[in-house]
Amino acid sequence: MTTSQLIQQIKQKKSFLCIGLDVDLNKLPKHLLKEEDPIFAFNKAIIDATHHLCVAYKPNTAFYEAYGLHGWKSLEKTINYINEKHPEIFTIADAKRGDIGNTSTMYAKAFFENMAFDSVTVAPYMGKDSVEPFLAFENKHTILLALTSNQGAFDFQTKVVDESELYKQVLETSKTWKNSENLMYVVGATKAEYFADIRKIIPDSFLLVPGIGAQGGNLQEVCKYGMNHSVGLLINSSRGIIYASKTEDFAEIAAIKAKELQQEMQVLLKT
Amino acid sequence: MTTSQLIQQIKQKKSFLCIGLDVDLNKLPKHLLKEEDPIFAFNKAIIDATHHLCVAYKPNTAFYEAYGLHGWKSLEKTINYINEKHPEIFTIADAKRGDIGNTSTMYAKAFFENMAFDSVTVAPYMGKDSVEPFLAFENKHTILLALTSNQGAFDFQTKVVDESELYKQVLETSKTWKNSENLMYVVGATKAEYFADIRKIIPDSFLLVPGIGAQGGNLQEVCKYGMNHSVGLLINSSRGIIYASKTEDFAEIAAIKAKELQQEMQVLLKT
Repeated sequence: MTTSQLIQQIKQKKSFLCIGLDVDLNKLPKHLLKEEDPIFAFNKAIIDATHHLCVAYKPNTAFYEAYGLHGWKSLEKTINYINEKHPEIFTIADAKRGDIGNTSTMYAKAFFENMAFDSVTVAPYMGKDSVEPFLAFENKHTILLALTSNQGAFDFQTKVVDESELYKQVLETSKTWKNSENLMYVVGATKAEYFADIRKIIPDSFLLVPGIGAQGGNLQEVCKYGMNHSVGLLINSSRGIIYASKTEDFAEIAAIKAKELQQEMQVLLKT
Repeated sequence: MTTSQLIQQIKQKKSFLCIGLDVDLNKLPKHLLKEEDPIFAFNKAIIDATHHLCVAYKPNTAFYEAYGLHGWKSLEKTINYINEKHPEIFTIADAKRGDIGNTSTMYAKAFFENMAFDSVTVAPYMGKDSVEPFLAFENKHTILLALTSNQGAFDFQTKVVDESELYKQVLETSKTWKNSENLMYVVGATKAEYFADIRKIIPDSFLLVPGIGAQGGNLQEVCKYGMNHSVGLLINSSRGIIYASKTEDFAEIAAIKAKELQQEMQVLLKT
């Protein structure tokens, strides 16, 4: 998917919501456990109920890998279902991968070719030759961790390196990499006060923003400092939507929660 | 596996060799492609031929994920085969994972419980709360990226942060984390001159050392500066062993290459 297709979808749906599909069997509505593939059954119901309210889905691979082969199969079924039924939706494999050149190419093949995701999250620690193999894929997007939403972000990411913080070095340096137009960045909503500085370095890039809701991030603040001329934000919510109810009405309630966020976004898009 | 079991194995085998099982279908001997599971058939033959010469096997997960469900199945069969036939061998899931707390726990379950690896490689960028969930598993080891073997290591890892390089900050900081006795570190053989400084910070920890052979690292230099009182090194070789021959004698030639390294190691262990 091209960036302009993503922007067009945002305008049509009046939403820049991404729904995180982080499916933990212990948190599923009980009645789904008798399904042959409870994880896929859950995802399918969430997707059917919310696809008109969001522009992206983001399965976090950890939640699938934890169930081994069965989990990997559920992930494949989920991405295939989204691509078949709702090809307009931007898909993110939240995998936080990254390795030396030839190995990153294999990861890129796993997520861009074998599973046909539009994007994958990548960790920057190993530098240029660990990220450029992902950037080489046309109309695919690499979402680089910059400033994450967790407390541990302060361990290294905000440390000062050569007069600016490490996450800023990641932003500045990655702009010089080959095919950097395919880069987006992860910036946590819990750190809204950092968005103004970040926009000085990367005014045009899309930011994937986790941390709204359960983690305490504020949507208005993020938009105030982070939104750009083409919106430039994908706001993720996982638990606040998909586990809003744990009974038979879970998909219906998820849609209500997603609608609440979409309507807040619709207002923010006007201003 | 406990660290002392690993050290005992090193003494018995007179080897601290780790063999990387990075299986690319394009590089396999042609006759294996007619097997039902060529990747597992290849790994099994390599393991059968080399298990007495090495103390660890390290499949890199990228090479399995690239083949989707089939690849994941081959990985499961490989770890199960090692654990059944050669339970004394230390197993490393070279996965370079890392995410916020509850998500890292899911990755830890994937590799420590679902697949029963002894260890997993983890990226430090997201800090303490992204690594501690791995450290919580008893007799399991977390191998943190410190200074990697690739050129991109100079993009961020060697940048000076608060008067010392980022990779040194990673070493210093991670020592303070809960259950840090379960930590090992990745340090590339291509940067042998760094080992003396590294040993000042973490004198006792095991180091997983990629980059010997194809990438240009020197075994003698690494041992001179990196070996400690309990050896403290796992030297990885992947391509130099598993692809030394691409015809029907591949396993036999792999054993010859592994034996060469083991014999160099036997000499180095005496001095």
